[in-house]
Amino acid sequence: MYMTHLECPKCKSEHNPHQLTQLCPDCGAPLLVRYDLEKIKANFKKEELPHRKPDLWRYREMLPLVDEQYKVTLGEGMTPLLSLDKLGKKLGIELYVKDEGIIPSGTFKSRGAAVGVSRAKELGVTALAMPTNGNAGASWSIYCAKADIDAYIVMPVDAPAITRNECAIAGAKLFLVNGLISDAGKIVGRAVAKNGWMDASTLKEPYRIEGKKTMGLEIAEQLNWEVPDVILYPTGGGVGLIGIYKALRELQAIGWIGEKMPRLVAVQAAGCAPIVKAWEEKKPASEFWNNASTVAFGITVPKALGDFLVLEAVYATNGCAIAIEDAELLQDLAELAREEGMFICPEGAANYTATKKLLQSGWIKPGEKVVMLNTGAGLKYPDTVNVQVPVLQPDEDIPAVL
Amino acid sequence: MYMTHLECPKCKSEHNPHQLTQLCPDCGAPLLVRYDLEKIKANFKKEELPHRKPDLWRYREMLPLVDEQYKVTLGEGMTPLLSLDKLGKKLGIELYVKDEGIIPSGTFKSRGAAVGVSRAKELGVTALAMPTNGNAGASWSIYCAKADIDAYIVMPVDAPAITRNECAIAGAKLFLVNGLISDAGKIVGRAVAKNGWMDASTLKEPYRIEGKKTMGLEIAEQLNWEVPDVILYPTGGGVGLIGIYKALRELQAIGWIGEKMPRLVAVQAAGCAPIVKAWEEKKPASEFWNNASTVAFGITVPKALGDFLVLEAVYATNGCAIAIEDAELLQDLAELAREEGMFICPEGAANYTATKKLLQSGWIKPGEKVVMLNTGAGLKYPDTVNVQVPVLQPDEDIPAVL
Repeated sequence: MYMTHLECPKCKSEHNPHQLTQLCPDCGAPLLVRYDLEKIKANFKKEELPHRKPDLWRYREMLPLVDEQYKVTLGEGMTPLLSLDKLGKKLGIELYVKDEGIIPSGTFKSRGAAVGVSRAKELGVTALAMPTNGNAGASWSIYCAKADIDAYIVMPVDAPAITRNECAIAGAKLFLVNGLISDAGKIVGRAVAKNGWMDASTLKEPYRIEGKKTMGLEIAEQLNWEVPDVILYPTGGGVGLIGIYKALRELQAIGWIGEKMPRLVAVQAAGCAPIVKAWEEKKPASEFWNNASTVAFGITVPKALGDFLVLEAVYATNGCAIAIEDAELLQDLAELAREEGMFICPEGAANYTATKKLLQSGWIKPGEKVVMLNTGAGLKYPDTVNVQVPVLQPDEDIPAVL
Repeated sequence: MYMTHLECPKCKSEHNPHQLTQLCPDCGAPLLVRYDLEKIKANFKKEELPHRKPDLWRYREMLPLVDEQYKVTLGEGMTPLLSLDKLGKKLGIELYVKDEGIIPSGTFKSRGAAVGVSRAKELGVTALAMPTNGNAGASWSIYCAKADIDAYIVMPVDAPAITRNECAIAGAKLFLVNGLISDAGKIVGRAVAKNGWMDASTLKEPYRIEGKKTMGLEIAEQLNWEVPDVILYPTGGGVGLIGIYKALRELQAIGWIGEKMPRLVAVQAAGCAPIVKAWEEKKPASEFWNNASTVAFGITVPKALGDFLVLEAVYATNGCAIAIEDAELLQDLAELAREEGMFICPEGAANYTATKKLLQSGWIKPGEKVVMLNTGAGLKYPDTVNVQVPVLQPDEDIPAVL
């Protein structure tokens, strides 16, 4: 175990990692886990990786769990990094998707849940609560079920229906709210204060991001420790982007990758683009986005607690932020399925629209290596597809002209 | 490439594997792919496996693709083998789930589709057709999209709704039929005869089973080349069970596992149990099951073309066949989610009911190592969950007493 302390990225104070801590007690910012990277560099060799299971725990030296007995796993991680040969060729770039649909519950949220719930278990947590746009709630519900932790989940009434089923069947205490995730967050805040539950809201505990970080570790491993030129990430709360950035910095520190960093792109929906607005105005933090609305429900986050960390990662890597219209991303979602056989979530499809726009503008150069994060399976978003199917009687034939 | 010929398991005739062949031209039975196992034994070492990608193509020496350039992959395979610690302890056995929900399109059908479509592409196929209970159609649609092969899919109107979306968005030509998969099969049969398409129906081409076989290879690898005592498999067409049996026999032939075989259990729904009936009557083949109906839609197969191969595998391993009522498997589906965090498909849940019944009857012994195949994600079957969720207004609190 190489975890040394929790650090506040805002006021730089340090905190004991061996007790449950939520936000920075000094300034209220999200805390980050720090490790003894020198010791990891000395003791952890990448040659060991092939002999470990293909899940995110293969990076246990860079994860915060102290005792393996608390590990709560459903086989998450080492999702495929797929080459989109046809579309890449058409665009004149090397195009990859990291497919986080191939994971328990079908979204990348299970990475954060696996590590977050394991660590909560280790710290003696028996009940937690969280607001969610659906997918995080589903993931935390199943891991909490396995860990025997009570989960109180609050999600907007408009969240994907299947995520309700997942929470319910896993035995979570589920509530809907007539509002957005920010409204759900306020309900959770009051409940946590009253009942003493752990608050598992995005970035209000330091371990979820460590799970998300493994996406960055895996991308580097899967590209044989050569980072790509660009990584696009659909950004709501932004924990994945922060995590990927943290992962790559840690890999640099232990000498597994070189100086080069990919340019990180925060992709948002035009109907909810607070990070894009802040980036365009070169500001260090975002403002609350009013009347947020997009079909890419998972990134409907009007104001992210970690906005300043997202923007820092974008600025530090010469990245950018870009907003995509729903109509365009839905067209591109269908193109990805039709051409590459990938039925992905609208959040993931937005990356592809963004890639094309950034190529057009010259921001992405011909021949560059571009990795898009698909954060979830299309299975969870059936409403993105219009289906009108002819019905035959058993004695009818498939019509000759289609 | 170690494929030598196609063999008819019924009349023992041998056929050229380098041209498209469907059923045995001599007797109409399904064909099986045969390999030069001696040569594989000499050239393929299991020590190579850790250095290969965690997908089913790590077993390429035991797969039928001749030229890698025709490989059509979406990252399928090396699904997790998960220990169900809590339920296993309760039952007094070592209980595992091989979770085929963690795969493109969320079901094990993608294994058959990946290898089947790759091989079809290699053989120059440009259009294929298939009947399906939904999931196979979805998988073949996405792989055909990537391979630029036209897919004509016919499924019952009662098949899971999400599978329609998957076929449609991947650009397949989709038709529903007012009837069962057997009715869909007749429509496909007529269309194939008329249009010269490849018939991708279950076991009407020899390569799908080679994809399914990799489940058996992976289970052996994941248990460090010691096979379990029992493997339970939800059986409709039965290709997975036939494939697992074939895989284990091939592993014996190349010396990677010993003499011991797991007892193979064919699990069916009480509403459609032709294999169970045949097994109880000690017959070598099944009869058409009238008025088939079960919530475990994927195994609603009234008469499987490969029934004799399923029964052969069950008899040869001292296995058995068992039928499960819908009400019981739905209860057990919920228990698996609540206790182990696994929201699986009803077909997969039936295995758990079967395990408990076989323990009660003494057929499974205390302490035995039991592997259950979960063939798909619960995400594809939202209707197995009853959800009644309280709706809060933003200023309301989570109620104190739940």
